[in-house]
Amino acid sequence: MDQGQLLKVLKDVADQALTPAAAAGKLGNDSFEELDYAKIDTTRAQRTGYPEVIYGSGKSAKQIVGIVKAMKDSQKSILATRVEQSKADEVLKELPFLKYDAVSQTLTLKDKERVEVGNIAIVTAGTSDIKVAEEAAVTAEIFGNQVTRIYDVGVAGIHRLFAKLDVIRQANVVIVIAGMEGALTSVVGGLVDHPVIAVPTSIGYGSNLGGMTPLLTMLNSCSSGISVVNIDNGFGAAYNASMINRLISEEHI
Amino acid sequence: MDQGQLLKVLKDVADQALTPAAAAGKLGNDSFEELDYAKIDTTRAQRTGYPEVIYGSGKSAKQIVGIVKAMKDSQKSILATRVEQSKADEVLKELPFLKYDAVSQTLTLKDKERVEVGNIAIVTAGTSDIKVAEEAAVTAEIFGNQVTRIYDVGVAGIHRLFAKLDVIRQANVVIVIAGMEGALTSVVGGLVDHPVIAVPTSIGYGSNLGGMTPLLTMLNSCSSGISVVNIDNGFGAAYNASMINRLISEEHI
Amino acid sequence: MDQGQLLKVLKDVADQALTPAAAAGKLGNDSFEELDYAKIDTTRAQRTGYPEVIYGSGKSAKQIVGIVKAMKDSQKSILATRVEQSKADEVLKELPFLKYDAVSQTLTLKDKERVEVGNIAIVTAGTSDIKVAEEAAVTAEIFGNQVTRIYDVGVAGIHRLFAKLDVIRQANVVIVIAGMEGALTSVVGGLVDHPVIAVPTSIGYGSNLGGMTPLLTMLNSCSSGISVVNIDNGFGAAYNASMINRLISEEHI
Amino acid sequence: MDQGQLLKVLKDVADQALTPAAAAGKLGNDSFEELDYAKIDTTRAQRTGYPEVIYGSGKSAKQIVGIVKAMKDSQKSILATRVEQSKADEVLKELPFLKYDAVSQTLTLKDKERVEVGNIAIVTAGTSDIKVAEEAAVTAEIFGNQVTRIYDVGVAGIHRLFAKLDVIRQANVVIVIAGMEGALTSVVGGLVDHPVIAVPTSIGYGSNLGGMTPLLTMLNSCSSGISVVNIDNGFGAAYNASMINRLISEEHI
Amino acid sequence: MDQGQLLKVLKDVADQALTPAAAAGKLGNDSFEELDYAKIDTTRAQRTGYPEVIYGSGKSAKQIVGIVKAMKDSQKSILATRVEQSKADEVLKELPFLKYDAVSQTLTLKDKERVEVGNIAIVTAGTSDIKVAEEAAVTAEIFGNQVTRIYDVGVAGIHRLFAKLDVIRQANVVIVIAGMEGALTSVVGGLVDHPVIAVPTSIGYGSNLGGMTPLLTMLNSCSSGISVVNIDNGFGAAYNASMINRLISEEHI
Amino acid sequence: MDQGQLLKVLKDVADQALTPAAAAGKLGNDSFEELDYAKIDTTRAQRTGYPEVIYGSGKSAKQIVGIVKAMKDSQKSILATRVEQSKADEVLKELPFLKYDAVSQTLTLKDKERVEVGNIAIVTAGTSDIKVAEEAAVTAEIFGNQVTRIYDVGVAGIHRLFAKLDVIRQANVVIVIAGMEGALTSVVGGLVDHPVIAVPTSIGYGSNLGGMTPLLTMLNSCSSGISVVNIDNGFGAAYNASMINRLISEEHI
Amino acid sequence: MDQGQLLKVLKDVADQALTPAAAAGKLGNDSFEELDYAKIDTTRAQRTGYPEVIYGSGKSAKQIVGIVKAMKDSQKSILATRVEQSKADEVLKELPFLKYDAVSQTLTLKDKERVEVGNIAIVTAGTSDIKVAEEAAVTAEIFGNQVTRIYDVGVAGIHRLFAKLDVIRQANVVIVIAGMEGALTSVVGGLVDHPVIAVPTSIGYGSNLGGMTPLLTMLNSCSSGISVVNIDNGFGAAYNASMINRLISEEHI
Amino acid sequence: MDQGQLLKVLKDVADQALTPAAAAGKLGNDSFEELDYAKIDTTRAQRTGYPEVIYGSGKSAKQIVGIVKAMKDSQKSILATRVEQSKADEVLKELPFLKYDAVSQTLTLKDKERVEVGNIAIVTAGTSDIKVAEEAAVTAEIFGNQVTRIYDVGVAGIHRLFAKLDVIRQANVVIVIAGMEGALTSVVGGLVDHPVIAVPTSIGYGSNLGGMTPLLTMLNSCSSGISVVNIDNGFGAAYNASMINRLISEEHI
Repeated sequence: MDQGQLLKVLKDVADQALTPAAAAGKLGNDSFEELDYAKIDTTRAQRTGYPEVIYGSGKSAKQIVGIVKAMKDSQKSILATRVEQSKADEVLKELPFLKYDAVSQTLTLKDKERVEVGNIAIVTAGTSDIKVAEEAAVTAEIFGNQVTRIYDVGVAGIHRLFAKLDVIRQANVVIVIAGMEGALTSVVGGLVDHPVIAVPTSIGYGSNLGGMTPLLTMLNSCSSGISVVNIDNGFGAAYNASMINRLISEEHI
Repeated sequence: MDQGQLLKVLKDVADQALTPAAAAGKLGNDSFEELDYAKIDTTRAQRTGYPEVIYGSGKSAKQIVGIVKAMKDSQKSILATRVEQSKADEVLKELPFLKYDAVSQTLTLKDKERVEVGNIAIVTAGTSDIKVAEEAAVTAEIFGNQVTRIYDVGVAGIHRLFAKLDVIRQANVVIVIAGMEGALTSVVGGLVDHPVIAVPTSIGYGSNLGGMTPLLTMLNSCSSGISVVNIDNGFGAAYNASMINRLISEEHI
Repeated sequence: MDQGQLLKVLKDVADQALTPAAAAGKLGNDSFEELDYAKIDTTRAQRTGYPEVIYGSGKSAKQIVGIVKAMKDSQKSILATRVEQSKADEVLKELPFLKYDAVSQTLTLKDKERVEVGNIAIVTAGTSDIKVAEEAAVTAEIFGNQVTRIYDVGVAGIHRLFAKLDVIRQANVVIVIAGMEGALTSVVGGLVDHPVIAVPTSIGYGSNLGGMTPLLTMLNSCSSGISVVNIDNGFGAAYNASMINRLISEEHI
Repeated sequence: MDQGQLLKVLKDVADQALTPAAAAGKLGNDSFEELDYAKIDTTRAQRTGYPEVIYGSGKSAKQIVGIVKAMKDSQKSILATRVEQSKADEVLKELPFLKYDAVSQTLTLKDKERVEVGNIAIVTAGTSDIKVAEEAAVTAEIFGNQVTRIYDVGVAGIHRLFAKLDVIRQANVVIVIAGMEGALTSVVGGLVDHPVIAVPTSIGYGSNLGGMTPLLTMLNSCSSGISVVNIDNGFGAAYNASMINRLISEEHI
Repeated sequence: MDQGQLLKVLKDVADQALTPAAAAGKLGNDSFEELDYAKIDTTRAQRTGYPEVIYGSGKSAKQIVGIVKAMKDSQKSILATRVEQSKADEVLKELPFLKYDAVSQTLTLKDKERVEVGNIAIVTAGTSDIKVAEEAAVTAEIFGNQVTRIYDVGVAGIHRLFAKLDVIRQANVVIVIAGMEGALTSVVGGLVDHPVIAVPTSIGYGSNLGGMTPLLTMLNSCSSGISVVNIDNGFGAAYNASMINRLISEEHI
Repeated sequence: MDQGQLLKVLKDVADQALTPAAAAGKLGNDSFEELDYAKIDTTRAQRTGYPEVIYGSGKSAKQIVGIVKAMKDSQKSILATRVEQSKADEVLKELPFLKYDAVSQTLTLKDKERVEVGNIAIVTAGTSDIKVAEEAAVTAEIFGNQVTRIYDVGVAGIHRLFAKLDVIRQANVVIVIAGMEGALTSVVGGLVDHPVIAVPTSIGYGSNLGGMTPLLTMLNSCSSGISVVNIDNGFGAAYNASMINRLISEEHI
Repeated sequence: MDQGQLLKVLKDVADQALTPAAAAGKLGNDSFEELDYAKIDTTRAQRTGYPEVIYGSGKSAKQIVGIVKAMKDSQKSILATRVEQSKADEVLKELPFLKYDAVSQTLTLKDKERVEVGNIAIVTAGTSDIKVAEEAAVTAEIFGNQVTRIYDVGVAGIHRLFAKLDVIRQANVVIVIAGMEGALTSVVGGLVDHPVIAVPTSIGYGSNLGGMTPLLTMLNSCSSGISVVNIDNGFGAAYNASMINRLISEEHI
Repeated sequence: MDQGQLLKVLKDVADQALTPAAAAGKLGNDSFEELDYAKIDTTRAQRTGYPEVIYGSGKSAKQIVGIVKAMKDSQKSILATRVEQSKADEVLKELPFLKYDAVSQTLTLKDKERVEVGNIAIVTAGTSDIKVAEEAAVTAEIFGNQVTRIYDVGVAGIHRLFAKLDVIRQANVVIVIAGMEGALTSVVGGLVDHPVIAVPTSIGYGSNLGGMTPLLTMLNSCSSGISVVNIDNGFGAAYNASMINRLISEEHI
């Protein structure tokens, strides 16, 4: 809002053409609930269509419980990622309505009224990438997307990928998850004409460098249409894919 | 296609239920034209909706001319990126129907019948990022997207960004281009609820490390909904954005 | 002191115009107490206004006890950082007058006569950065500064920062503590006109690279007026901020 | 400003207790002038006491001329850094009132009425660091600070530093500029009790790594009270030092 | 297969000159068995002469058991690498016909009818590299190669290497395994005229950087005829060496 | 040769059972010719089957001429790599019997009597990798190998690779040359069962990091049977491939 | 030895002018004792004046016992470094004549007849560097050098260093051990005119990068006369210093 | 000097037992001559036996002339390193008594009365390392050492090294200079029992990383007795070697 627009709004208020509350709406009414250790963005779900998400790593079970309670009034679905088994057990004692999934390390509460739309394909190179893939899958599902899982189709046996190509091509968005050298991304990127989101994983040894090698591979891909998120960041990929998928699907409805 | 499906197709051919040509279509009929120094993917535009693009860097003017000629029959629009002024001059002598733009360093032929759809916002942090931004803008336009340019709104004077926020929020996809430390991406990512594609640039000095610093910044963004392409890769960002924008817009039509 | 000045002092001694003790003062009378494992700088508090500080990491409880005892005659306040709970317990058995704080991992003895002056704002991006923030806060308080804590105002929900901007702007110095990509620093730097000291934290995953990513972000900030200390170094930031704050405040008195 | 405060202001406007213009002031009236290639922050000098500064690198002479003209109405002093000789020559033809300094590569217009206050010491390890030091010195002077230059006192001949220690200790802030291994910073940091701002330079060869080595050295300094800015960033150090120096000095007046 | 060849095959099927099954063979009949967590390449042993190998790291004992069972029908020899003692114990309870070797951390089933051919020399610089060397040795043996072990002949006592040179020179392929600085590779490379495959190990400390130092050393070797595999990748080196050795040896038969 | 063997040889000489010359042969008769600036290994061609090769970079035209002259008596074929056009022109004035190739930047003299054996396939991802590929091709040919060139078959259009797969599979050894992200290597490695030698190139921009990205990709390949040489090192790959190819082919003769 | 010299020796043997044993001496009589897991260089002590040393890390207690037993006949003093307490306990049960030191983590047997000569000064920046310093000290003493320890004299309190300067200057060689930023090395290097050997330590946090920062600092030192060994490599520094010290001292005798 | 000693000296002056001048000597009489751009350490040659040296890089011809003139009264020999041909030409016009050497890029004035003592061997791996080697050689000679050059004996043809081993072993100190992977250092270190100083060079390509690869190789050497200086730092190695060589040789006289 530029200076002119601001003065216009304020003049409207002075002229009683606008109530203070309506003006507040125009001037930005983002709000938050303040805990000791966090400021929770309570109007986020209405504003963006996405629930505020809890990044569990580095938070105590007690803090997670507190945040979930504060959130529960303003959002119908809840997602906490990176929650280890032992921490989850503590949280579940207090909040038995949450569901814990040990592979993806997520705690969720699903909004059952939400309609699942469109389709996101989640493709992994190997069996070891499944943990990250499931973080993506659970996230995408909680955000109301249909998910198709295609696991263990890395380029060392590329015929396995080709056998699944039709399924992959039907998705609105494709998430490709790979460790080692991450070459699967470029191959998929060259074969589909929908957006591909690449997730490097820290799977591998030696010069994999904790995932930096597939990260660099993916950023330098000779195939167009690929963008990249952080190492092991299944959540981030799914959030992105969900935005794109829902925009496409909802226009359709 | 799995073994069963393959046998099915072949049996249909044996049973004359399918002509060899139709079967070839099902079994993948990707083709290419072979030059001495390149293999041009001539059916690409029909297949994916995107013309094959020439990455000009490291190719001679003569090679570019040869490739454009080979492409011209099969695609209506042509885009060559990373073409320096002197090389472009040589190409234009042979192919005067191309248009050269010195800021974005692109040679283009535009398909005038193509309808521009949707809207992509291209946002830069500084004046020095404009070169990369224009590579993105020209690419997006040649691929049939409407483009809105919002330049020089970096976080050192964040009120300039807020003054343009409404315009940015109207786009289907936002491309954020920033050098130095790249913080603009996270701020935009926290304020819009459409997909954000981040392009780090090599603008800066010292520990900018040729763009690695904003690249890492963008990958680690605390805002969700951001994905990243390679350093200075305006083309890649626009290709990605175009895929998303056209999927959203075309569903709508 | 150059050669001429040195000769002048020595001639004054020869001429009895100066006593040896006074000359010793002019020629540098820094002294230290020698333990087996350390050389304690006992005149530091008088000289610089700051107590010598114990960096607890890598020292045994026994060594910490020894050093505190050696210090106690010459300084009124004591600060030991990076002391884990178990080590602290051992120390407290011997030195019950110290106070342990488990979040900041500090052992302190406060000089109650010291007047707190000025104001240092400590701002964090997330909840996970609080540990480093508290090391800074405790350090600043032991050095006689007023401290204002503003936690969890990262740029993913930038309205939380704006809501606190007035408080931040009232401080003489602002410490900004952020992990992930560290973009908060640039935003704060663009909004306040007092010195900003940035502390990158090792909070994040994948390409955060143990804090190197926010460190690089902060060093490359497009906002002016920002300087940076080492990763997770809350103590260093507070020491710095204290120097600046007290110089400003004391001139005022 | 939180929701409550916002409503309060707007109610005051509705109640005619506040004029729209006065409310606009409270709600943030930052403004800028829009050029084709830049958005100039014209109220910056009034707001922060510092003129907007032009980072010359990557801008054409023509763009610099345009920006200076746009600035000239709103600010009395002008500073452009990183301007090479040839570019400066072009600018000076259009704007002969500017002054060019070839060592620091700055174009300046000095506000002669501004009173110089306090004192900033600029210390270099070697002769080769002088270029960065002069960028810092010119910047500090244009911002109204007294500057003392102490060059070539690196630790290879540490007696040269001790000979200048009294002068250094009289400054409110010390800027230490060093390439090679950057050890001078720690030594100075251990000897003065005012804030030290360290600037690593890209001077050196081999494993200096373009300044990354002294940058890391300075960040890891065992002396307290040191903060660091980007490699070769004389401007940034001076901006920082100026903020601190003026706050100290002005309180005094 | 190009478009023309594809049509040719399909026409032959249409003309009954080729059965669908035979055509499927020509068009690629790679197949796989699908488990929940893996897709096993069951025709691999026939196709390439090498059994599919299980990379044990990151797989559960249960998953390994499942995969071995699925493999057992289609391949006579089995190799699982990177299996820790405790995991191996679990597997052996279910599959007592496998053999576990604690140094190389491998589980194997050997095809007793396979004839061992040729000779691969495995040379280590130190005693600490033996673990990686044994992974290579077991792999090479399971693939039907004769193996000669020459351990602890690093360049610090180069006469130990010369004493073994005749034995090394008799091998078809030489695998050199070294940590620390990896110089042994260059020395061996300069003394033998058969292919040398270098394996850097993560043995060393400080600036060994987890094996990156010997990796770089080996890639930059001034001796010709050396190629390199990943850090600690004894399996990869042996696979490579086996391919070469068997090609040489089998031609001979 | 151990101490016992050494004494045995010497006793035989003492006993006249062995002539001094024969003993010299057993004790190693490597020799070299000493120039001012180089020590040329003149018996190398007889010993290893490979001519000594001149690495032209950093040598003057005069030095290259001197070395070629010194070599010419002892070897029938000559190869100098990394010779720029201007340097080559100077050399050719003195040594008109050499042949210069501008793409591969090599000077060669071919031994026409040498029989070309076997087959090495040289595969590139893009047109820009051809320079490195030709260094490999010329080297392989001078060493007596048949070479098949398959250029521009990168994974962005993977059908181009499949169209050439039969040709690639017929080679004894495959050299894969790729810049950008280097994914082609893994795909080829998964499709052929002969040794693959990977050459990363410095083609690409931004986070390609001068070839470090494809280098890391190739080292971490999930396909087995791949080994790697240094960035842009076409010569090294060809030397390696030649060793393997000739060993296989010669056994056959 | 060149070809001519070799023939000369062999002719002398043939002519009975030289016995085979004497010739063997001239041709190199290095020998070793072969264990399963190691090749021990048994004539090393006589040849170089230094006992073969056991690098304990990665060796089992049993292997260490075996190696010590094999060594004991040929060398009077024994040194094993990097031996943890628990492993040492096991070794001492078998070999009670060894002495274990828990700080330096060494097992030693001292040759009591060896005369200690010269003087090596070992200087540390902090208390935390003492562990590395003691590895150096024990090594130097076992090799027959006098050692002077000067600990905790880092540049944060540089007067502590000056107080000890006379002692440091009396040593033939100075070992400087520092973590954090390692600046102490440059200061000492500028003040003494005997060789300085620098040892970076992994003491520090954040951007210390496991010792890479002080390593780079030391390599880039602006003071002359400094050379560097690997991170935490107290043994290597002492070995080096001992070579120099003994050469100086012994010439004197 | 500690507090007690300081008081003792000053009391002696007060008691007239010591003249002020004599006391000044005891208290440190380091002095320097101050130019505009440098502070020249004029008593250095007397104090340390080594002339102050001019690092030419980054200094203008005019500055070099000024420094040489200022030095000439206090030192008999002069050395300027890193002086390019064109700059040298300018200097020589003013100072024709200096001698320029184009390979080592040094300007020198030799003290003809200085006796050359001892012997330093300078060994290079390749022809391309000679430039760095000559910087070392000229430096060592100007400092009064005998120098033996052994060039182009890299490990790719290790027999060339063995042929020169006797000469190398006769030196007091050995400087080993190598680029590429730097393996020569470890080999020499394992064969000589005098101190070895390693100089990595930036010779090589691809993953040589500007000399970082041989630098890391040398630091991680498995041979003892090696220390390392900065990349391409021939001067530093020679300064170091000279210190050691002269200490050994002079004791002998």
